[in-house]
Amino acid sequence: MADTVLFEFLHTEMVAELWAHDPDPGPGGQKMSLSVLEGMGFRVGRALGERLPRETLAFREELDVLKFLCKDLWVAVFQKQMDSLRTNHQGTYVLQDNSFPLLLPMASGLQYLEEAPKFLAFTCGLLRGALCTLGIESVVTASVAALPICKFQVVIPKS
Amino acid sequence: MADTVLFEFLHTEMVAELWAHDPDPGPGGQKMSLSVLEGMGFRVGRALGERLPRETLAFREELDVLKFLCKDLWVAVFQKQMDSLRTNHQGTYVLQDNSFPLLLPMASGLQYLEEAPKFLAFTCGLLRGALCTLGIESVVTASVAALPICKFQVVIPKS
Repeated sequence: MADTVLFEFLHTEMVAELWAHDPDPGPGGQKMSLSVLEGMGFRVGRALGERLPRETLAFREELDVLKFLCKDLWVAVFQKQMDSLRTNHQGTYVLQDNSFPLLLPMASGLQYLEEAPKFLAFTCGLLRGALCTLGIESVVTASVAALPICKFQVVIPKS
Repeated sequence: MADTVLFEFLHTEMVAELWAHDPDPGPGGQKMSLSVLEGMGFRVGRALGERLPRETLAFREELDVLKFLCKDLWVAVFQKQMDSLRTNHQGTYVLQDNSFPLLLPMASGLQYLEEAPKFLAFTCGLLRGALCTLGIESVVTASVAALPICKFQVVIPKS
């Protein structure tokens, strides 16, 4: 029962802890905390990626890998699938979650929007880490226009 | 699949992060990091405790509550039960896990024993927090004589 919420509780505590002891509460300090969270997410994503069933490593198309993240990875971490996936077919993907679990505890509306980035950094790292394990370097950012809807943008530079 | 290991990965990252940025690596700083981890565990334990099925709140005997932690809480968090529970019937309980999951990644033997406390603090807090939600104030400590065997000692002061 409790294991499905354990990740969310732990994530909340990590965010709170990083902000509580932030030596520099200004924009510079915020940026450092976000970067720390993103790094933790990256390493967890990479470790999770290594636990993925071996057949997933045979993906040929980038799009297949992204679909896999939207479905299998999201279910493993958040017990739900991503709501939509769009791409410009030039290496940019937009993954949309209409009720992103880590934003749900916040009241909806505009007044908490500025708090949103700290609840997204870990997951950006998680996506980047899982992609890294699957052999894809990427840049992942997130944006929120209205809580609890969240868009993750994955940009895969062409080599 | 991955959700069962997600907690362990996150826990590892939290420990690493707290020690990496510890401003004081000496005994004083260590103590602060342990206390931070214990506090995070306490709040997660309290939150998990609030999600417990309501009938558990009807426990009459302290021993029933401890048995519940050894079984249901442990399974929810670690996907296994505690291996043994002993008590002196005077408010002291010793909960023993013969293969404590958060110690398993460390090689067995004596050389890593001094690293063990940082992997136990969160869980001590978790037990204390869950007990708190169930109306029991306690002091929880942990000790390791040989990896990965771990003993948690719960002392419930008589009021």
